[in-house]
Amino acid sequence: MEKLIANLANKKSAVIVVDVQNDYCHPDGAIAKIGSDVSAVKTMMPALHGLLASAREHGVPVIFLQTNHEKATDSDVWVSRFADGINPICHTGSWGAEFYEVAPLPSETVVKKHRYSGFIHTRLASVLQTMKIETLIMTGVSTNLCVESTARDGFMLDYRIVLVKDACAAFTQPEHDMTLKTVDAYFGMVADTKQIVDFWQRQGAPAPQLVTT
Amino acid sequence: MEKLIANLANKKSAVIVVDVQNDYCHPDGAIAKIGSDVSAVKTMMPALHGLLASAREHGVPVIFLQTNHEKATDSDVWVSRFADGINPICHTGSWGAEFYEVAPLPSETVVKKHRYSGFIHTRLASVLQTMKIETLIMTGVSTNLCVESTARDGFMLDYRIVLVKDACAAFTQPEHDMTLKTVDAYFGMVADTKQIVDFWQRQGAPAPQLVTT
Repeated sequence: MEKLIANLANKKSAVIVVDVQNDYCHPDGAIAKIGSDVSAVKTMMPALHGLLASAREHGVPVIFLQTNHEKATDSDVWVSRFADGINPICHTGSWGAEFYEVAPLPSETVVKKHRYSGFIHTRLASVLQTMKIETLIMTGVSTNLCVESTARDGFMLDYRIVLVKDACAAFTQPEHDMTLKTVDAYFGMVADTKQIVDFWQRQGAPAPQLVTT
Repeated sequence: MEKLIANLANKKSAVIVVDVQNDYCHPDGAIAKIGSDVSAVKTMMPALHGLLASAREHGVPVIFLQTNHEKATDSDVWVSRFADGINPICHTGSWGAEFYEVAPLPSETVVKKHRYSGFIHTRLASVLQTMKIETLIMTGVSTNLCVESTARDGFMLDYRIVLVKDACAAFTQPEHDMTLKTVDAYFGMVADTKQIVDFWQRQGAPAPQLVTT
């Protein structure tokens, strides 16, 4: 709890929602279709919804990362991940690239990305700098890929990292668990939604007023 | 083997030697002193020495990453990893920052770094671009931190990644093993020293000559 307070108190935080998009999350999405188990997404969604509601209530900015793949950014190396060299995931403009069960408010920022990490060839650093964000509250999918890559880069770029373990999901439990260990030991800290919401609620409570009349 | 050929044939490769420095590797170094088990380094060194000898014999460039920590780059976030806020590792100019059992040739490049990844706030991308490198043959310590962070960023910046499993070491076996899985599945491929040396030896054999006189 002490570490969480050190990461949140007097620091401007943002909730980063990574790749909560149909192709990664929906049972009919591209990742499910190539045989990955997306059931952990269903388990995480109540925590994510709760975290987003609380963030919005307490004025904590929410930033959405959205993967967009298209010919212009699908380099030979990037598509070499796929045996047939064809990237089936999150094509720009497709249903698969649309958000899954979350929706940015008009006031919230979406950062498009073309690699796992939200920092690679994107405007994320500029957005965070403009908003004077110091702490990244990391959520989304998949824990060990896009969330962890963004958390690693973010920490190395001097952001404090709080990974929300019940608001992230991976496609296997060992991958999810190893990221929690890695982030906790080397890249920041791990917390759950309740700890963060409790902190915001305590912090947001009106301070006792001195009656001077 | 097919994947290894696809990553090495007709591509300019470099061996990247990550953080093979006393503080990470030597039994008297800072990491051993804070209780981490550096014994896997001893196990990996023969493979690394063999790989470097073969690379030099076959004209494959070797690039050394060298961690250098000092006040100018030890940000609050970076030193928050340490309970006392003091970074005991690889101080610029110290014995701990010196290379451990390896030494760059005068013709080889050293890239200093201040975070886990060799790409964060360094000249590595410029060096690789200048040398027209396409494939990074990743070695060094620790597998899951500086090697993996550099491999993740490298892949996302469009370099082909070959992680050399017997020329890397972590401070625990599960961390080492998880990185092998992660890199193999998502960020490139895993090979061993023998496969790479064999490839260079086959490639380096003189082509059959047609006698035309």
